[in-house]
Amino acid sequence: MAKIIGRALVPLALLACAPLTVPYAHADEGMWTMDNLPIKQMEERYHFTPSKEWIERVTKASTRLALGCSASFVSADGLVMTNHHCANECLQQLSDKTHNYFQDGYSAKNAAAEQRCPAMELNQLDSITDVTDRVQTALKGKEGEAYTKARQAEESAIEKECAGSDAKAWRCDVISLYHGGRIALYKYRRYQDVRMVMAPDQNAAFFGGDPDNFNFPRYDLDMAFLRVYDNGKPAKVSAYLPFDGAGPKAGQLVFTSGNPGSTEREVPLADLEFSRNISVPFVIDNYSALNGALWQYSRESAAHHQEAQERVFGIENSLKVYRGRVSVLADPKLLTAKAKSEAELRDWINADPSRKATYGDPWAKNAQALAVKRRIFKPYAMLEGSFGIQGELFSYASLLVRAANERQKPDGERLSAYHDGRLPALEAELGSTAPVYPDLEKTELAFSLTKLRQILGADDDNVKLVLGKSAPDELAVELVNGTKLADPKVRLALWKGGAKAIEASQDPMIVLARKVEPVARALRKQMDDDVLAPSRQATEAMAKARFAMKGMTSYPDATFTQRLSFGQVKGWDENGKEVAPFTYFSGLYDRATGSDPFKLSKPWVDAKNHLNMQTPFDFASTNDIIGGNSGSPVIDAQGHAVGLIFDGNIHSLGGDFYYDESTNRAVAVDSAAILESLKSVYKNQALANELVTGHL
Amino acid sequence: MAKIIGRALVPLALLACAPLTVPYAHADEGMWTMDNLPIKQMEERYHFTPSKEWIERVTKASTRLALGCSASFVSADGLVMTNHHCANECLQQLSDKTHNYFQDGYSAKNAAAEQRCPAMELNQLDSITDVTDRVQTALKGKEGEAYTKARQAEESAIEKECAGSDAKAWRCDVISLYHGGRIALYKYRRYQDVRMVMAPDQNAAFFGGDPDNFNFPRYDLDMAFLRVYDNGKPAKVSAYLPFDGAGPKAGQLVFTSGNPGSTEREVPLADLEFSRNISVPFVIDNYSALNGALWQYSRESAAHHQEAQERVFGIENSLKVYRGRVSVLADPKLLTAKAKSEAELRDWINADPSRKATYGDPWAKNAQALAVKRRIFKPYAMLEGSFGIQGELFSYASLLVRAANERQKPDGERLSAYHDGRLPALEAELGSTAPVYPDLEKTELAFSLTKLRQILGADDDNVKLVLGKSAPDELAVELVNGTKLADPKVRLALWKGGAKAIEASQDPMIVLARKVEPVARALRKQMDDDVLAPSRQATEAMAKARFAMKGMTSYPDATFTQRLSFGQVKGWDENGKEVAPFTYFSGLYDRATGSDPFKLSKPWVDAKNHLNMQTPFDFASTNDIIGGNSGSPVIDAQGHAVGLIFDGNIHSLGGDFYYDESTNRAVAVDSAAILESLKSVYKNQALANELVTGHL
Repeated sequence: MAKIIGRALVPLALLACAPLTVPYAHADEGMWTMDNLPIKQMEERYHFTPSKEWIERVTKASTRLALGCSASFVSADGLVMTNHHCANECLQQLSDKTHNYFQDGYSAKNAAAEQRCPAMELNQLDSITDVTDRVQTALKGKEGEAYTKARQAEESAIEKECAGSDAKAWRCDVISLYHGGRIALYKYRRYQDVRMVMAPDQNAAFFGGDPDNFNFPRYDLDMAFLRVYDNGKPAKVSAYLPFDGAGPKAGQLVFTSGNPGSTEREVPLADLEFSRNISVPFVIDNYSALNGALWQYSRESAAHHQEAQERVFGIENSLKVYRGRVSVLADPKLLTAKAKSEAELRDWINADPSRKATYGDPWAKNAQALAVKRRIFKPYAMLEGSFGIQGELFSYASLLVRAANERQKPDGERLSAYHDGRLPALEAELGSTAPVYPDLEKTELAFSLTKLRQILGADDDNVKLVLGKSAPDELAVELVNGTKLADPKVRLALWKGGAKAIEASQDPMIVLARKVEPVARALRKQMDDDVLAPSRQATEAMAKARFAMKGMTSYPDATFTQRLSFGQVKGWDENGKEVAPFTYFSGLYDRATGSDPFKLSKPWVDAKNHLNMQTPFDFASTNDIIGGNSGSPVIDAQGHAVGLIFDGNIHSLGGDFYYDESTNRAVAVDSAAILESLKSVYKNQALANELVTGHL
Repeated sequence: MAKIIGRALVPLALLACAPLTVPYAHADEGMWTMDNLPIKQMEERYHFTPSKEWIERVTKASTRLALGCSASFVSADGLVMTNHHCANECLQQLSDKTHNYFQDGYSAKNAAAEQRCPAMELNQLDSITDVTDRVQTALKGKEGEAYTKARQAEESAIEKECAGSDAKAWRCDVISLYHGGRIALYKYRRYQDVRMVMAPDQNAAFFGGDPDNFNFPRYDLDMAFLRVYDNGKPAKVSAYLPFDGAGPKAGQLVFTSGNPGSTEREVPLADLEFSRNISVPFVIDNYSALNGALWQYSRESAAHHQEAQERVFGIENSLKVYRGRVSVLADPKLLTAKAKSEAELRDWINADPSRKATYGDPWAKNAQALAVKRRIFKPYAMLEGSFGIQGELFSYASLLVRAANERQKPDGERLSAYHDGRLPALEAELGSTAPVYPDLEKTELAFSLTKLRQILGADDDNVKLVLGKSAPDELAVELVNGTKLADPKVRLALWKGGAKAIEASQDPMIVLARKVEPVARALRKQMDDDVLAPSRQATEAMAKARFAMKGMTSYPDATFTQRLSFGQVKGWDENGKEVAPFTYFSGLYDRATGSDPFKLSKPWVDAKNHLNMQTPFDFASTNDIIGGNSGSPVIDAQGHAVGLIFDGNIHSLGGDFYYDESTNRAVAVDSAAILESLKSVYKNQALANELVTGHL
C-alpha cells in the first residue's frame, strides 16, 4: 500500500494544502491521536475502554520508520515487525551479485549475523507536548514571507530546545494538527542502527504483484523483521506487543496503531478541483511514462530487473493511489457535499458582522494562493519537486548543494529539513552504502530531462540552463560517467567540507546542482510565501470558524504521526457479492499459476504437504488507515499483536477524501500465517520462538 | 499535428458522442462544407466572393488520404502534396536494412523510380448528395438494437447503390452532419496506386521533434510529395492547385481546404465531464506508459529506434492533444458556458407542452446512455478498443476473424466497416508488404497484456480467457514466435478462405482472436445499442430544439470530410508578447544545437552558404483547423497553393471544444520554403519544375 518515502516521489506541497479539521466522525471512522482517543465511541460501539497501561504500551511499542512506514516492537530485545515492502530498500541495498535478498528473502542465522540496513532509521514516540499558543503568538499578524520566516524560526527554536544537545538520540517535530487548530511537539527516540533479521521471498511477500495490489481476497506474506541495536547490542526496549499466534476472529474488535501519512478529508473544494484538474493528471502522466520506461528497462536483463525492482514497486503503488484519486475526484457526490458544507460555513460567517471581522474571506485568500500555485506548478514540480532531474546521483548532489547553503545560516532561518536536529539523518543518508546503478541512473536521468524539456518547452530559460545544447541522453551519460557521487566517501567529504567544498567542486553533478539551486530555491520561496502561507491561513480560518459553528469533536487529518484506529474484522458487500474477511493458505495454492507474479517460491512449493492449509492468511477489517500505515500492528483488546497491516482494499483509496465503513477495508497479514510460515515454510524456529516468548 | 490514423489509436466511440450543431459562428471560425460556404461572412470580413470555378477547382483538387490526413493535387499529372508526417508510414514501410527513408528522406530520380506505398489510398471527392429524409424515415420510432440495425441497413443500401458495381473505383460514405440535422452521401474517387515522389529527411521535416510539436515559432519542412497512378501511369487529374512559390504576405486572406477529423464543440456537458473524468485520464495514463516503454525500447539499438519511430511519433502526438484536452476541460469557463447554454435550451423546451412532447427530455436519455458507457468503458477499451491486446499481428488477426464473421451476413446487417464497399480497402490493408518487427510486436503485446490484467484485474473472466495461466511476457513471446501472420500471403489466404479458413486455422494469433471475438462483439453491441443509439437520439433532439429556438446558420462539427476555412496570415499576442506570423530559414540555423531533435541534416548543413536566409519558412494563420487537416493546402484568393498546413499552435488544442480567434493559430509550411528547399537543399529541380509549371 501507499507508503511515504523519504525522497518523496511526490512533494507533498504540490498536492494539496494542509487539511482542515473534520467536523464530526461516525462509525469506525478516525485516525485518533493517542492523547485524545475516542473513548466514548469505543465504549458505545464495542464496550471497550482502554486502560492507562494499554494506551502506554501501545504508544511505546508502536514505532515509525523515518523514511516512511509504521512498525512495532514485538520482543523485549528490540525485534521489530513491519512489512516486506517497507524493508524493500534495505533488502535491495544489502544485495550484491551473489545475493538477491529482495527477491529471494533474507534470514540471519543468529543475532550476530543480522546485517545493518545502510539507510534505515526507526523512531519511537517518547512524548507529545502542546505548543499551540507559543506558535500562534509568534505568527500573529504576519503574512507571506514574514509568516514563513517566523514559522521557521519558532519551530526551529522549539525543536532545538526539545532535542537538546543530543540530536543523534532525539528527533523533535512540530506538527500542525487540525490544520493549526492545535500545534504539537512530537519527541522521538531515534534508533539508527537497524538490522535485518528476516524477510520472506518477494513471491510470497508480494504474491499477485501489481495486479493484486489494493485488492482482496489476497494471499500476501508482506512481512519483515528488523532489530534495533544500541551500542552494537540488541536494544532492550521499554515496551513491546506480545505476539498472539492465534490471530483474530471474524467480528472481533481490533486496533491499528501506526502513522497514516496524509489525508485530505477537509481540504477546501478549490483544492480538490486543483488536484483533479492539474496535479493528479500531471503526476499520473509522468509516473505512467516512467513506469513504462522502467518496465521495458526491467525486461532487458536480469540485472536490470533487479536494479529497477524497488523503484518500479514504488511507482506502481503510487500510480494505484493516484488512479484511485481520479475515480474519487470524479464522483460528483464528494464535490457536491463539499460545496454544500462550505456554503453553509460561508453563510454562517456572513450572517454576523463580528464573524466576518474575525474570519474574513478565507475562500478569496485561498483562491489567490491557488492562482499562484497554478502558475508555478509545473516549473516547481520539475525543478524543485524532482520530476525534471531524477536519479539518486542528482538527488545526492542537490541535497549537498542545498545543505551547504542552509548550514551557513542560523538554525532558525533554515528550511525545516535542514535544522540541526535533522542533520544527522541527512548525513546518514549521504553515507549510505546502498549501491548506485549507472545504467538505471542514466535511464532515469535521460527520461526526466526529456520530460523537463517537453513540459517546460525547449525555449524555457531553465531548460536551456540545464540542457545547454546537449540532448537529454547525451547529458545523462556525461553526468553519470563523470560524477564521483556514487561513492559515499566522496559524498561525506563534500558534506563535511561544507559550502567551500561545494563551491570548489568540479564534479559535473555538483556543477549542475549548483546551477539549478537558485532557480529551485526561488520557486520554493514562492511556493512557501505566496501559496502555502496564505493557504494555511485561509484553511486555518475555515477550521476555526467550523469549530465555532459546530464544536470540535473529531480527529485531525493524517500527518505521519502516531494514530490509533478501532474497528472490527469484517468483509464487505461488493455489488451484491459478499467478500469474506479471511483468506487461507489453501487459497494461495489455488491461485498460483506458475507465472510471475502468481508464482510460488521453492519454500512454499516444498512446504505444501506439511502445512496446515486452514491457516488464516490475510484478513480485512474496518480500521481507518491510509498510506504510511503500512507495517502497523493489528492489536486486540488485550494489547497483543494479532496481525500486520500491509494494504487496503480498492475502496480504501477513497480514504484520502472520506471514510466509508460499508466498503473501506484495511488488509493485514494474520499473526497465525506469520507464525505458521516461520515454522513450516521458512524453518526459522528461533524467530518463531522469540515471537512467542517475547525474548531472544 | 493530430492526424487520424486508420487503425485508430483511440476508438472514437470512447471519447464522446457525436456532436451537436454549433448555434452561431463568428470571426474566422468555422469548418464549412463546400456546398454551404459562408459567403456573407467572407464578403463582410474580406471582401471576397468565391466564383463557381474557384469552388469547383478547390473541391476537386483537395483530396484525402484514406488512413487519415488531407492532401491536394498540385500538378495535372497526379502530383500530390501532403505532410511528411502523413507519409511516415509509407516511408517506414519502404525502408529496409540499407535504406531508412523515414530518417534520411526519399527522392525518386524520375517517375519510373517512384515506389508504390504498400498501404496508401487517396480519395478525391466527387459529389455530395443529401439523404436526410431517406435515413430519418428509416429510423423513425426505432430504439436501441432496432435503431442500430435500421441505421446499418439503410446506410449500407445507400452506399451500395452509390458505388454501384465498381467498389474498387468509388467509395461512398453516409455522413451525419449537424448531428443528424443533415445526412449526406459523400462519393469519392479512389486512387489505390499511390507512389512516393519525394520526402525530406526527418530532421528537416520534424525539426524540434516532440518538444516543438504544437509550438510556434517553428522551423519544419513537414512536406512530402506523392503521385497517384492510373493503370500504371501517372494519373491525369481533373483539377489541381497551381503552386505559387512566392508564398503569402502578412494579413493576406488565406483558405485551407481539408478534412478536419472531429471536433466536440457542441457535445453535451455530461459528455465533456465524462471525457474529463474518465476517458481522457484513461487514455493519457495508457499512452504515457506505452510511450515510456517505447522510449526505452528505442534507446536499446539503432534498429529498435527505427522500428518504433513512427509509432512513437503517433503516440507523442496524441498525448499532446490529450494533454491539451486536460487543460481545456479544466477551464471552468468552457463548462460554465456549456451549462448555461443547456439550461437555456432546457427552459425553452419546458416552457411549452408541445415542445416537451416534441423533444422529450434528451438530457435524461443521454444520462442513461452515459451510465452504460461508464460501466462498460474499461472492458470496451481493453477488448474492443485495442488497448488490451496491441500490435500489428493481433490487429491483423482480429480483423480477419471479424471480417470472416461479417462477410457471411447480408451487407445491410454488417457493421459499417465491413460493407462490400469497404472490403477492398481491408484487403489492401491485409496485403500490405509493410514489415512487421518481432521485437516490437513482443514488446507492445506484453505491455498491453500487462495493462489488460492490471486494469480489469487478475480475477476478471476475460483476463483469464486471454492469459490463461501464462504471464503476459510469456504469452507475447509464444504468440509472436508462433504466428505466421507477419506474411501478407498468409493473411490474404485467410482472407480469401473466409470463415472456413478462419475456423480451421491453428495459428495461435488467430486462435486468440477467435477467443476474444465473442466478448469484444458483445461489448460492441452494448456500445452501439445502449450507448451510441440513445445518445445520438438525445443529441439530435437537442440539436433540433436548438435549430427551432435559434435558427441554423453555422457549420457542422468536423467529420473527416472536406471543409473550407477562411482566415488571414497573422501572429498573436502571447501574454503580452507579440508572436510574429513568419519564421525564416535563418532562424533554423540559429535554433540548431547539433543534437537531436534540433540537429540539421547534411543537406541543410551543406546548403547553408547557398541559401536565401530570408526565405519565409513556416507561418501562422487564423484558419480554424483540427487534427485531420494535416496536409491541407493553404490557398489564396486566386485558388493557388501558397502553403501546406502541418500543425496548430498550442492554443489550437482548445479547438476541439471552441475556436478562439485571439490565440488559435494554424501553422503551415510556406510555399517559398518548399520551392527554395527543393532547389537549393535537395537539388530536385525536376520536382521544382513540376510545381512551377503544373506538369511533369
